[in-house]
Amino acid sequence: MSMFTTDSVIGVIGAGTMGAGIAQVAAKAGHPVLLFDAAEGAAERGRKNIGKGLQKLVSRGKMTAEDVDALVGRIQVITSLDEMAPAALVVEAIVERLDVKQSVFGQLEEICSEQTVLATNTSSISVTAIGSTLKRPQNLVGMHFFNPAPIMKLVEVISGLDTKPEIADAIFQLSASWGKKPVHAKSTPGFIVNRVARPFYAEGFRIFQEGGADNVTIDAVIREAGGFRMGPFELTDLIGHDVNYAVTSSVFAAYYNDQRFLPSLIQLELVNAGHFGRKTGKGFYDYSEGAEKPAPQTAPEAAKPNSVTIEGDLGVAEPLVAQFEAAGITVNRTEGDGRIQVGDATLMLTNGQFTTVRAAEISNRNLIHFDLALDYAEAGRIALAPADKADAKAVEQATGLFQAAGKAVSIIDDIPGMIIMRTVAMLANEGFDAVNQQVCNEEAVDIAMQGGVNYPRGPIAWANGVGLARILNVLRNLGASYGEDRYRPSPLLLRKVAGGRQA
Amino acid sequence: MSMFTTDSVIGVIGAGTMGAGIAQVAAKAGHPVLLFDAAEGAAERGRKNIGKGLQKLVSRGKMTAEDVDALVGRIQVITSLDEMAPAALVVEAIVERLDVKQSVFGQLEEICSEQTVLATNTSSISVTAIGSTLKRPQNLVGMHFFNPAPIMKLVEVISGLDTKPEIADAIFQLSASWGKKPVHAKSTPGFIVNRVARPFYAEGFRIFQEGGADNVTIDAVIREAGGFRMGPFELTDLIGHDVNYAVTSSVFAAYYNDQRFLPSLIQLELVNAGHFGRKTGKGFYDYSEGAEKPAPQTAPEAAKPNSVTIEGDLGVAEPLVAQFEAAGITVNRTEGDGRIQVGDATLMLTNGQFTTVRAAEISNRNLIHFDLALDYAEAGRIALAPADKADAKAVEQATGLFQAAGKAVSIIDDIPGMIIMRTVAMLANEGFDAVNQQVCNEEAVDIAMQGGVNYPRGPIAWANGVGLARILNVLRNLGASYGEDRYRPSPLLLRKVAGGRQA
Amino acid sequence: MSMFTTDSVIGVIGAGTMGAGIAQVAAKAGHPVLLFDAAEGAAERGRKNIGKGLQKLVSRGKMTAEDVDALVGRIQVITSLDEMAPAALVVEAIVERLDVKQSVFGQLEEICSEQTVLATNTSSISVTAIGSTLKRPQNLVGMHFFNPAPIMKLVEVISGLDTKPEIADAIFQLSASWGKKPVHAKSTPGFIVNRVARPFYAEGFRIFQEGGADNVTIDAVIREAGGFRMGPFELTDLIGHDVNYAVTSSVFAAYYNDQRFLPSLIQLELVNAGHFGRKTGKGFYDYSEGAEKPAPQTAPEAAKPNSVTIEGDLGVAEPLVAQFEAAGITVNRTEGDGRIQVGDATLMLTNGQFTTVRAAEISNRNLIHFDLALDYAEAGRIALAPADKADAKAVEQATGLFQAAGKAVSIIDDIPGMIIMRTVAMLANEGFDAVNQQVCNEEAVDIAMQGGVNYPRGPIAWANGVGLARILNVLRNLGASYGEDRYRPSPLLLRKVAGGRQA
Repeated sequence: MSMFTTDSVIGVIGAGTMGAGIAQVAAKAGHPVLLFDAAEGAAERGRKNIGKGLQKLVSRGKMTAEDVDALVGRIQVITSLDEMAPAALVVEAIVERLDVKQSVFGQLEEICSEQTVLATNTSSISVTAIGSTLKRPQNLVGMHFFNPAPIMKLVEVISGLDTKPEIADAIFQLSASWGKKPVHAKSTPGFIVNRVARPFYAEGFRIFQEGGADNVTIDAVIREAGGFRMGPFELTDLIGHDVNYAVTSSVFAAYYNDQRFLPSLIQLELVNAGHFGRKTGKGFYDYSEGAEKPAPQTAPEAAKPNSVTIEGDLGVAEPLVAQFEAAGITVNRTEGDGRIQVGDATLMLTNGQFTTVRAAEISNRNLIHFDLALDYAEAGRIALAPADKADAKAVEQATGLFQAAGKAVSIIDDIPGMIIMRTVAMLANEGFDAVNQQVCNEEAVDIAMQGGVNYPRGPIAWANGVGLARILNVLRNLGASYGEDRYRPSPLLLRKVAGGRQA
Repeated sequence: MSMFTTDSVIGVIGAGTMGAGIAQVAAKAGHPVLLFDAAEGAAERGRKNIGKGLQKLVSRGKMTAEDVDALVGRIQVITSLDEMAPAALVVEAIVERLDVKQSVFGQLEEICSEQTVLATNTSSISVTAIGSTLKRPQNLVGMHFFNPAPIMKLVEVISGLDTKPEIADAIFQLSASWGKKPVHAKSTPGFIVNRVARPFYAEGFRIFQEGGADNVTIDAVIREAGGFRMGPFELTDLIGHDVNYAVTSSVFAAYYNDQRFLPSLIQLELVNAGHFGRKTGKGFYDYSEGAEKPAPQTAPEAAKPNSVTIEGDLGVAEPLVAQFEAAGITVNRTEGDGRIQVGDATLMLTNGQFTTVRAAEISNRNLIHFDLALDYAEAGRIALAPADKADAKAVEQATGLFQAAGKAVSIIDDIPGMIIMRTVAMLANEGFDAVNQQVCNEEAVDIAMQGGVNYPRGPIAWANGVGLARILNVLRNLGASYGEDRYRPSPLLLRKVAGGRQA
Repeated sequence: MSMFTTDSVIGVIGAGTMGAGIAQVAAKAGHPVLLFDAAEGAAERGRKNIGKGLQKLVSRGKMTAEDVDALVGRIQVITSLDEMAPAALVVEAIVERLDVKQSVFGQLEEICSEQTVLATNTSSISVTAIGSTLKRPQNLVGMHFFNPAPIMKLVEVISGLDTKPEIADAIFQLSASWGKKPVHAKSTPGFIVNRVARPFYAEGFRIFQEGGADNVTIDAVIREAGGFRMGPFELTDLIGHDVNYAVTSSVFAAYYNDQRFLPSLIQLELVNAGHFGRKTGKGFYDYSEGAEKPAPQTAPEAAKPNSVTIEGDLGVAEPLVAQFEAAGITVNRTEGDGRIQVGDATLMLTNGQFTTVRAAEISNRNLIHFDLALDYAEAGRIALAPADKADAKAVEQATGLFQAAGKAVSIIDDIPGMIIMRTVAMLANEGFDAVNQQVCNEEAVDIAMQGGVNYPRGPIAWANGVGLARILNVLRNLGASYGEDRYRPSPLLLRKVAGGRQA
């Protein structure tokens, strides 16, 4: 028997965007909802905003007016915390301050029954710490929604040290019954999403900082080849650099300055400048009226080659071969280590080295790395990184080949691991490390990153698709290129590549 | 001629546990002692507590009532710092605050003679910094006792930048004359013990964090195979996690966030929860009334093998061979690289790699690592870490072999360097690094860890027993497994393995 | 057409040593100068000090009294910021506080014209951050002079995120027209000099901390073999350890605790002790009256060898060969990997390994490393680091050889990379990394370090002289010796050694 039914009263404290969103979700699922906000009138405003927001769905024919009325009707605004008494679950979505949360939950313990589950929507405070001043810390659990709560599927169900497993399970089931994709995670800094997502920003910023490519091009590659909805620059412009930098700094500090979570000086300078992104009219991009949207670096049209030789298996990049053929290019296949020979150019999937360093190692000055794509058949763009001494002619031949396959080509500077490969390798690596530290399981990582931040594919599934041995090799080569702890492969990845702990 | 005689008056400031303990030690040695505490009545209480404590020795027949009376009689409580004038040495054991200590010593410089030696029992403040406001910083020295002072043998004699070597030598000799084991050390964060001991906690916590083994099993292995009196979980439960976490954090900060001293999120969560250990009734273990003591993971009885093949020299693990023979197992010896073959199983002493990774390298799926022991003949327990794909049958055969040798067997998850080996390697490594940075000499490291925290063997002597080349290899493999600076071998260890700087 | 002419009025705010120096430079170049200081009378004092200082040049015949009068006459003291209105450029050299600088520039925006260029002499605050509260941040630029401003050639022209390139270019040209050596740099912590110089102090301190050599010897080697004007110990005694430690700590924090910028416990203890250097009478050296200047460790005279065999090319150390010959030593040359064989001794240029470790690797107990020199022909001293087991006789033979070549010989402990080699490798590495992060170009690094802190050669030119592959090898071996991120080679260096991005 489940701990909650749709008759269970759900309390929500805090009627800002997040609190109102949670109230909406619970009411949508049929629960009577009690909405409280300490600021006078705020709960009522929150309730009205819910109604207003739902009118849009009505006008788009996605909900009936009656359904909206019924839903909003299930949300009752209360003006005193005492009225929370009947709640079976109270979710708190107020200011991120430990003492304030402890005080609210302390009051709730007096007001509500001993069976009432207390849930915090905190994103950055230890659930364990919040529970430490409670009489019944076993009843406190983290229930971390993502913005906007009615739309984003993910709920991170966070167990503090004292949270009873049955309570976490009940919240997991309740979230699922609300149409969410819940995952279990241990109370640790950043939980899953705010931890695993860090390289998405960090690697993009770093490539930019080192002159590997401009922000417009990186964003375009991430979108058009990586399949992400937004690149790191446009996304952080949207989130706000003040907010995103603060989250990174908080996770960095909480992990005792682990270089994996190193904040970016590039982003700090935006914060220093007050260029927080869309909300200030300027970030990496200019949002002032009349500002032109800059175009990514895209190579001019080059001649289509007549033939290409594929040496060995291209692995994850195999779909390219059919595209070359479809473009009328003669494809010869021979034995080899996974190369594309076209004219003078040798193309290989980036392995995390500088193309220039690998070119020297294999004595092939015309080596050109190409980047990972989510789906090589679908990708509308591909990034190429030629060795420093590659001939212009070879670069042109490589460009013509990919253009014939229907892709815009961005020639970027020689940067280890390029753009998508290093980002995906680092996302997966962080995911494996969260698993290695018992924060959650592998499945939870992938659900979280897809449901919480809209990744086109879970990083662990993606890494498995690329091949773990290849991902490990990329990380090792990134490590050899930069010499930093930051790129250290997770021990779990080593172990899996050696044949252990297969899921 | 020595600087002090038993007629020398010893002043002690602060009559808490530590100050009273120091007063007792000095009085026991025959000195007239002046005991002062700024809190009214505290010095008198301290003196009484000394008497009470000694009564236990009387009742156990270890001291006569007369000796106790004489000892306590030599301790004179004073109520004004001015009465410290006749002291030849004043030892301060008050609150750990730089300004307070500086103020007290500043007053003492006015009160006492120019020859009076001033000693601080600080564990965490730079002796140099304390001396910086004094007229005669050359007369200030650290005299760091360990709790309980009358019992623990170690005294760390700490030289600040301005401490006169003659003063440090005199305190060294005085401590020795009190029956202590003094060591010289330079004023650096953590001195010797609080620096070198960090991996004892850190490695245990990390193994637990990564699911390598549960705390009960780790503690049992550390005690029963490692010969330590307590494992890291029970010991920190005793010390208090608030205190132990604060010490780690302080050393970590003082070494500029050197990963070698990384605090543990596992322990932080205990602090967050308010589960400080014994004193709060809960820590890693539950101390509430009626709580059951959990049992370590111990493998069920397995069949004794008839024969075993020892390939090559087992090095430090050689005593096992006699135990196998004594159990009636036929031992065949062949050439080899130090393996035990029993049935399908191949047993090797952990080298710091994942067993799974090493198994893949040597193409032997049934590889099982065994852990280091203080003394393989005496050890009552042994930990085994099978490769992920090892057959259950092989694990059972290995279990039966060690059980036949009289050991309880704990099968742990595949964790690089296992439990004792990585702990000892890291302790020794930290010891070597302290020596490399001129904090103290090798002998001092071993005396300190045995006399200050009861280690069964000095970590440097232990590492020499295992073989420095093997310890270096373990550290390198730990580094390769984790990719972190944390496991970097001390340069001194490299040099010694290459044949240099032998003691 | 240039933005400034000599008729352009230059405003200077702050009449301390730096502000007065800048005013003098501008006036010397012929500009009318407005000098303001918020402290009553300070600007007038500053102006008088300029005159006094210049009298010394008159007395040395380097300036005429008329020229001095004219120069000082061009400096007008103003007592209200409002009088800055006519300035074409205002340079601020006041207290290093963000809010104060923002406030002053905010006032200047109201007082001066929209075309007025605003420049800050900050050494440690983000130019971007200073500009963030301005109406016209595009007109703000960093103009970082070095002390003493009239003498030191370097001006770092710092572009914040919003600085208009034309403004930075105009300041660059203006500085050049004043006889300075300007460089462009991006607003990042430490800019060029305060970032790239850190290893000069850090490596010296570390060698000392590990007992590699005493401070006197290190300073002597750095001066007499390295060609620097002062060694790190005498230089920081001059700068003041409070100041130098604060700069290091600030850069360390700003780079998120990057180990490359790790502060030194050795220096912290000096700060703890209040031994700030010359200004307190004590630092690494004793400056009290009558204190003897200690002598560097110098080997006693040893016999001159009759012959020496040079195996292979000595590279940067080739000038030694002529010196050996000039001393009447028979030089035999054979094939080989760059060794000097003299008697029992084998001498090799340090490669960043312990001599002891390399000796074990090449099975040659009598291996002795020698250090890098700026110019082997000119060097008056050379450091030798014998392997731990080298025979005394071999060390003596090596000593005699270098003494015959006219060099004092300092036998130091076996320390990886010795003194000059590791310092130069790390300086160049930091320079490459600044370039890799787009802070400035390679030429700027060398100009900055020669013009700002008097290095005898730019570190990048120096590294090119030694050979980049050799420098990379030294760094890798330092990394292998210490195992720390600190010695990681810059990715740019890897790329260049592989044949890429040649200047």
